[in-house]
Formats: sequence, C-alpha cells, structure tokens
Amino acid sequence: MASYFENGSDALVPDALQGFALAHADLVTLDPGHGFLLARDTAPARRVALLSGGGAGHEPMHAGYVGRGMLDAACPGRVFASPHNRQIYEASLAAARPGGVLHIVKNYTGDRINFGIAAERLAHRGVPCARVLVDDDLASDSGEVATGRRGTGGTVLVEKILGAAADAGAGLDDLQRLGSRLAARCRTLAVASAAHTSPTLGEPAFRLGPDEIEYGVGIHGERARRTAEKGPLGPLVERMTGELLAALAPEPGCTLLTLVNGLGAVTPLELYAVHGELVRVLGAHGLAPARCLVGDYATALDMRGFSLTLLVAEPSDLAHYDAPVHTAALRW
Amino acid sequence: MASYFENGSDALVPDALQGFALAHADLVTLDPGHGFLLARDTAPARRVALLSGGGAGHEPMHAGYVGRGMLDAACPGRVFASPHNRQIYEASLAAARPGGVLHIVKNYTGDRINFGIAAERLAHRGVPCARVLVDDDLASDSGEVATGRRGTGGTVLVEKILGAAADAGAGLDDLQRLGSRLAARCRTLAVASAAHTSPTLGEPAFRLGPDEIEYGVGIHGERARRTAEKGPLGPLVERMTGELLAALAPEPGCTLLTLVNGLGAVTPLELYAVHGELVRVLGAHGLAPARCLVGDYATALDMRGFSLTLLVAEPSDLAHYDAPVHTAALRW
Repeated sequence: MASYFENGSDALVPDALQGFALAHADLVTLDPGHGFLLARDTAPARRVALLSGGGAGHEPMHAGYVGRGMLDAACPGRVFASPHNRQIYEASLAAARPGGVLHIVKNYTGDRINFGIAAERLAHRGVPCARVLVDDDLASDSGEVATGRRGTGGTVLVEKILGAAADAGAGLDDLQRLGSRLAARCRTLAVASAAHTSPTLGEPAFRLGPDEIEYGVGIHGERARRTAEKGPLGPLVERMTGELLAALAPEPGCTLLTLVNGLGAVTPLELYAVHGELVRVLGAHGLAPARCLVGDYATALDMRGFSLTLLVAEPSDLAHYDAPVHTAALRW
Repeated sequence: MASYFENGSDALVPDALQGFALAHADLVTLDPGHGFLLARDTAPARRVALLSGGGAGHEPMHAGYVGRGMLDAACPGRVFASPHNRQIYEASLAAARPGGVLHIVKNYTGDRINFGIAAERLAHRGVPCARVLVDDDLASDSGEVATGRRGTGGTVLVEKILGAAADAGAGLDDLQRLGSRLAARCRTLAVASAAHTSPTLGEPAFRLGPDEIEYGVGIHGERARRTAEKGPLGPLVERMTGELLAALAPEPGCTLLTLVNGLGAVTPLELYAVHGELVRVLGAHGLAPARCLVGDYATALDMRGFSLTLLVAEPSDLAHYDAPVHTAALRW
C-alpha cells in the first residue's frame, strides 16, 4: 500500500481546499485564513443558514454539499479530526441569516465539543443557533458506548432534505425538528475488506486476512466488534439489510430512501451490484426504495468498503428530496 | 489487498448492470440478453445515435454517460475485455436513428476489431455507420507501438461534446469530423502508486516499492515504460503537464478543457490538490482551464492513481460542452 499523492501530509487538506475552490468557483468561496467554504449564493427565501463540518477524509462530505439547495458553509478539520471551534464560529458568523444558523453535526466527541463551544459564542453574539445531531451508525448502537451511535453516511440525506426545507423558508425550530426526526429514522451499516491508508504512516490502518471483512467498521477505521468471513455479496447484503430493518422496523409501503455508499476504493461495479442485491432483499420484505443514491458520498479516505443507509421518510419529505440541488457532488 | 465484493468474478459485471439499470431506470433500459444499455429518451432533433463501449472496469465510463445529451447506448464487455461484435451490432440496431450510428471507440486492438465487424454488418443492413477513434494516451505515443496511442480519459470530453452536437442535429460526417478533431487535440498522462486488484487472482496486478510510481500507466494496468520516484505532488504535476503541453503546443489564451481523473482508489482530497497544482502550472505557461472536471470519470478498477487530460478546443466547442447533460455520472 502506498502513501498519498501530496506535498506533505500537512499540506494535503489546505491544497485540496484551494483546488476545490478553484474548480467550483461558481459555487463556493474559500476563507483560507479560517479554512471554511461558503456558498456563493443560496435561495433568497432561506432564513436559516445550514452549516456542517467534521474531519477531512470523508469527501465529498461536506465540502461537496455546499451550494444551492444544500449547505451554506462547511468547516473541514484536518484528516479525521474535528474542525476547531473558532473555525466553526467564524463560518457561522459569515453564513448566518436573520433566522440564525443550524449546525448539522455527526456524533463524535470532538465534533460535539467544538460545535458546542462555537454555539455558545454565537449565543453571546445574539445569533440564534440550534443543532441536529446525526447518529446513524448501527454498528455503534450499544449500551456500552456512552457517546452513542456515530454519525456517518446518512448525514448526506439529512443535509439534502434540510437544504430544501431551508430554501422553502423554514425557521430554526422547524428545521431542527425535521432534522432530528430524519436522523432518528436513519441507520447505516458499513463493511470493509481493507483499511484506509494511514495518512501519517503510509500503511494500512489495520490488517485483515484475504477472506475477512470488518463488519460494522467506522468511517475513521474504528474496528468493528466482529471480524467476519467475507463470502459472496448476496448473503452479506441480506445480513446487513436485515439488521438495518430490524432496527428501523419500517411499515410495508413506507417511503424509504436508500444510499449505497463507497468508502473510497470500492468500484462502481461493486456498488451497483450491492444496490441490485439491496433492492432484491427489500422486495422480499415488501419494501422498495422511493429514491436511491449509489456512489461515493461519504468516504473514509481509501478504505475498501461500503456502507448501506436506510432512511424511513414521510411521503412529504420527497418534495424536499427532489427539489433542485446544485453542489459539487450532488446535482439535480 | 482483498478481492472484490461480488457473487463471483463472472457475476460482477451482469450484477452491476442490473443494479445500474434499477438505480437509473429514469435514464436507461438494459437489454440483459445482449448486455447493452440504451438511453430512454434523447433529443428529438438528434439524427445520429452515439454509441460507445469497451471493457468493464472503467466505470462510470461508458454506462454512466448514457442518457440525455450524451450517449444513446453503451456496450460493456467483461472486465478489461472488448465487447463482442454481436453486442455492438445489436446495440447499434436498437439505437440507430435515420442519420445512422457513430461509434466512439477507444484505441485498443480488440475494440477496433469488434466495432469494425459490427460496422461491416451494419453497412450490409444499410445502416450508415462511422467511427471516431480516441487515442489520447501520451504514454503510448511511440513509433515502436504499431497500434498507436491507447484511448483513455479524454474519451469522456469527446463524448460530452459530441452528444451536444448530435442533439443540435449534426449529421454523421460532421460528427465524425468534430470527434476526430477533438481526439487529435487531446492528450492524457496517468500515474499510479499501486496497481488495481486483479479480478481473477485477488492480488495486485503488479507491485511497486513504497516510493515508486508507474509513470505513464495504462487503464488496464499496462506497465509504463518507466518506474519513477514518487516525490511531492507539485513537481510530479509539473512534469506531467509539461509533457502534455509539449505534445499539444497550445497557443496562450486558447480554449483549454482539463480533466483530473481518479483511476479508482485515489481520494478526492488528492484529486483537488492535483487540480490546484495543474492550474498553477498552466498559469505559468499563460494558460488557464476554460472548463474543468475533477473526479472519477474513467477508472481502472481500484488502481491507486490519477490521470491528467488536456483538450485544446475551439471557442465554439464551449457551447456544446456547456449544453445540458443528464446521465448517471455527468449532469448539468
């Protein structure tokens, strides 16, 4: 396994942000001092700014979702490290609208602390601020884990729907309620057959045998509670989907959003094969995706794995999901 | 290195095609018997159908480019193997329009032969057929290689522009001329720090030292003429861009299209850092991208590498480039 193409491990994120801002100058501006991206223009009816952030290494999340119909701003930290609270505070001030700022936060201790400090400072400045916490990772759903479930790929679906609701003029409380309802009905499970390359060591972050997978891996290479045998794809997707359905208990005929998400080094061939199996398994449960995404939406550097996300939506959410979006990574 | 998530190596491509057709049922239909994808609807003014194809393993190329404003049909072969001439023939018949069919072919012996046989059979059936051969890979530009340069990432740009020209009602000869002019002014160079995983062996197709890169690698893992030292990103992009510019000799102020393309396992962070370096190097030559793409557009399974493509366009090509496109992988 080789290391990254970069000018040095400290340079990779700032270099990437500059390149991103150059490639998408029609959509975003970069504040190079504080290290955040700001949407160039969003809907005039939007009263509340949406801001997200987290460690880098999960691209296109979140920078790729800044733009029309989705996020007003994104704060990337260093690779797999929370953004600094000053960065979040400055980005929130720059993005804030009359109705305030909504922080969409993946559930990790560092992110919670830094977004929390920024929110306190914003309150002192009189900027209304609320938080949606996304905690969709079923693999970390255990009474033993005091911090609760991790936030992963489901964040993309939450951000898309909130973006359209914000464009429609929803206020801070309504957005907070909507986001929390979506997060509560969203679960994700991830597997990997090879770890990501550690950016500092240039080595795989962990090692698996040729027929092993990490079943329930986290997007920072958090080891799963169990290493499983790999086996063919069909039974694997059946098992993953079965556990997600057991956790969510969706009614037949419900409005289901699905995301088959590559974690970095998995091919589109594999992801589409996973989607085919997912549709088959859901069908056997009397379910079908109302909308689906297949691709690299929330990665873990070059991890060789994929995640499955199910979100049980309300039929009324579909209009928000379908509303136009124009960002670097999501566009319709 | 682990093997692929699949139901078996023979099942991966058919399973992926089925999953793709399910995920993008609004855009394509799959002929499962002959194994080709057909656009559901393209512009009524289009008189000539555009068809491409080639070995699987390069996704989203070409299936991801079937739809409105780009390809009428795509014929994927098995992984890294040409589609069968029968498959191309049947797809051409299914897609053909009154003005005929244009085959967009990457320059590989198997592809040339199979597209050629299909074209002869189409001629016997009275279906007008012409070919655009894309041969952009600078690394294979040598008098020693009788087959000429390989076709790689530049194909995406050629297909986009031809799609818009076809939508505008261009005839077969005009499209053939336009495509050939674009291909002649397009060059690509690729590097890799790790090979793709061989689908049959589950092992890296070749091995490199931790500080080595394959400079001029092909999209099927064709070894480069030289293995180089990796070094920092800036000088690497400088060298690659310098060689592309030497081959193309663009005038300052010309209309330049650029593509920074991931070959599979390279992260978006790296690709955007590459784009930043590319813009810097071009600027030093009095050049700037008129339009740019950064992402995974023509991959080589899970190869850890990227390619740079420059296309010297005419100013009038920009309207075609900018024209709306709605496919699985390209949309604006």
